[in-house]
Amino acid sequence: MAETFHAWAAADRGAKLQPFDYSPGPLGPEQVQIRVESCGLCHSDLSMLDNDWGNSVYPLVLGHEAIGIVEAAGDFAKGVKVGDRVGLGWFAGSCMHCRPCLSGRHNLCATAEQTIVGRHGGFADRVRCHWSWALKLPEGIDPKKAGPLFCGGITAFGPIADFGVKPTHRVGVIGIGGLGHLALQFLSKWGCHVTAFTSSDSKSAEAKALGANAVLNSRDSAAMKSAAGSFDFILSTVNVPLDWSAYINLLAPDGRLHFVGAVLEPIEVQAFSLIGQRKRISGSPLGAPATVLDMLDFCARHGIAPQTETFAMADVNDALEHLKAGKARYRIVLEN
Amino acid sequence: MAETFHAWAAADRGAKLQPFDYSPGPLGPEQVQIRVESCGLCHSDLSMLDNDWGNSVYPLVLGHEAIGIVEAAGDFAKGVKVGDRVGLGWFAGSCMHCRPCLSGRHNLCATAEQTIVGRHGGFADRVRCHWSWALKLPEGIDPKKAGPLFCGGITAFGPIADFGVKPTHRVGVIGIGGLGHLALQFLSKWGCHVTAFTSSDSKSAEAKALGANAVLNSRDSAAMKSAAGSFDFILSTVNVPLDWSAYINLLAPDGRLHFVGAVLEPIEVQAFSLIGQRKRISGSPLGAPATVLDMLDFCARHGIAPQTETFAMADVNDALEHLKAGKARYRIVLEN
Repeated sequence: MAETFHAWAAADRGAKLQPFDYSPGPLGPEQVQIRVESCGLCHSDLSMLDNDWGNSVYPLVLGHEAIGIVEAAGDFAKGVKVGDRVGLGWFAGSCMHCRPCLSGRHNLCATAEQTIVGRHGGFADRVRCHWSWALKLPEGIDPKKAGPLFCGGITAFGPIADFGVKPTHRVGVIGIGGLGHLALQFLSKWGCHVTAFTSSDSKSAEAKALGANAVLNSRDSAAMKSAAGSFDFILSTVNVPLDWSAYINLLAPDGRLHFVGAVLEPIEVQAFSLIGQRKRISGSPLGAPATVLDMLDFCARHGIAPQTETFAMADVNDALEHLKAGKARYRIVLEN
Repeated sequence: MAETFHAWAAADRGAKLQPFDYSPGPLGPEQVQIRVESCGLCHSDLSMLDNDWGNSVYPLVLGHEAIGIVEAAGDFAKGVKVGDRVGLGWFAGSCMHCRPCLSGRHNLCATAEQTIVGRHGGFADRVRCHWSWALKLPEGIDPKKAGPLFCGGITAFGPIADFGVKPTHRVGVIGIGGLGHLALQFLSKWGCHVTAFTSSDSKSAEAKALGANAVLNSRDSAAMKSAAGSFDFILSTVNVPLDWSAYINLLAPDGRLHFVGAVLEPIEVQAFSLIGQRKRISGSPLGAPATVLDMLDFCARHGIAPQTETFAMADVNDALEHLKAGKARYRIVLEN
């Protein structure tokens, strides 16, 4: 008897989501099947809905921050078992045998399967993935708020864990939104001196409540100048072009300006501005499975959680409107 | 009795060098005085002669790759003594107490003294510096060829040593000139698979003789495309604008495009091209004293030396013309 998944899908670019049933076919031997309890709504879902990156396939089931219970596992699935509560993020599979995979960098696998690219995601009653990307929630993580950790969270946490950010560092976060509000919490508990960059004074108190030691209004050019040379690590979570030279100028010797926000306009860099004080610019996608597990433990230990707003899965179109209007504070979770 | 140094100086921007005597005043308590045996001529000397960077002070005594014998040392000079043969490069002093200095990164000291910026350099019979930058030549280094190691050499060696280049890496060098011909030797002896990028087929055999395993003509767009994703580290030693996106495309996951060539035109980078495979762009100046010592040991162990052409110090203007004409193969040394 063919199984049917009940999902929400866009029939075409930018279309409203509609109920959509599909048959997933037989479960792969290395796959697990997750009964979705909730799924975060991420800005990347909007980008995919609108085919901003040119790789959307319709009908399109969005959702790549799913939390749920493993209800079936292929014969060769490892590490998780039926009954486990797991999270599934942007990646749904890696080849496991390329050099990045073999060296623990499954997130850099060139043929990694992406949960909502050419396959159906988590705005559904069920979703599937390779066992390596179904990661068990530890004790102390509230499953109702955990979804956004699996995309927004790990995108912010990855470079902190992977690029040698130290508790003695002075760090900054550009953009206090879905990713930024988590980055502030991570970096504060990481032990750093944390500055929130925002052009909106209204977010100052919130940023401090999230762990920022200081707030710097990026439009205050005098303040920006007087902070020159003082940041070891600046994380940009925004997708709008800023005066990147001004941020490079803020970096200390060996400082790094790191991009997780996919700004589409090219970033202009002067070689001299990197050479003199050995500065660097870099980017990263989500973290590898081992880094996700580290993040979850770190969140449980320090009580870090996304600030979420909840919608019923059936109200997914309202949730999309809310996100599109820039009103999400800071992440949206859809509940089945 | 006031001491007099006999030097060669430019009276004004771009002027021919003329004999120039000056009194250096009393030797500082932490300084050493070096009797110059030879001094390399570097492209940065030309840039300073022409005030390309806006910080030249005339009369200007060029020369920042000096080899010589310590003939006097201040009461608080450490690590070197009268009679030692030392090298002096671009830096002539660091504050010793800032965080970069205290952490061994004297090359990133914001107030580092630069040998030919606002003071007189090594095209002279004598030159002075802080003891920390007068670095003793080990056994097995030919002093007649060693000068260029102290600027060109350490500029190429620094990022290899400081940024985790591994013997298992596939690496590339852009530009087979003063820096590039040393970078090829370093990386080959470092154990890497080394590709020389050049737009001149005529340099192919030379690049291989210097240690390159492969040569890639950067104008061969098919070859450039088929090498996509295969380089862990690419070092750019050129100061002309290239298609940097094409080089970023060549980087493997976690790959780095590193600039030591001070290209003046801004480098344009797409955030997406960094994010997906966690790539990075960086720059560096010369290395710290400890890194210079490591480089000298490495050169002695592996028989690495600059390929030099020799001029008498009195023929410095001929040497400058030779360099300006792009004829140097690959570094020029002036001998007293």
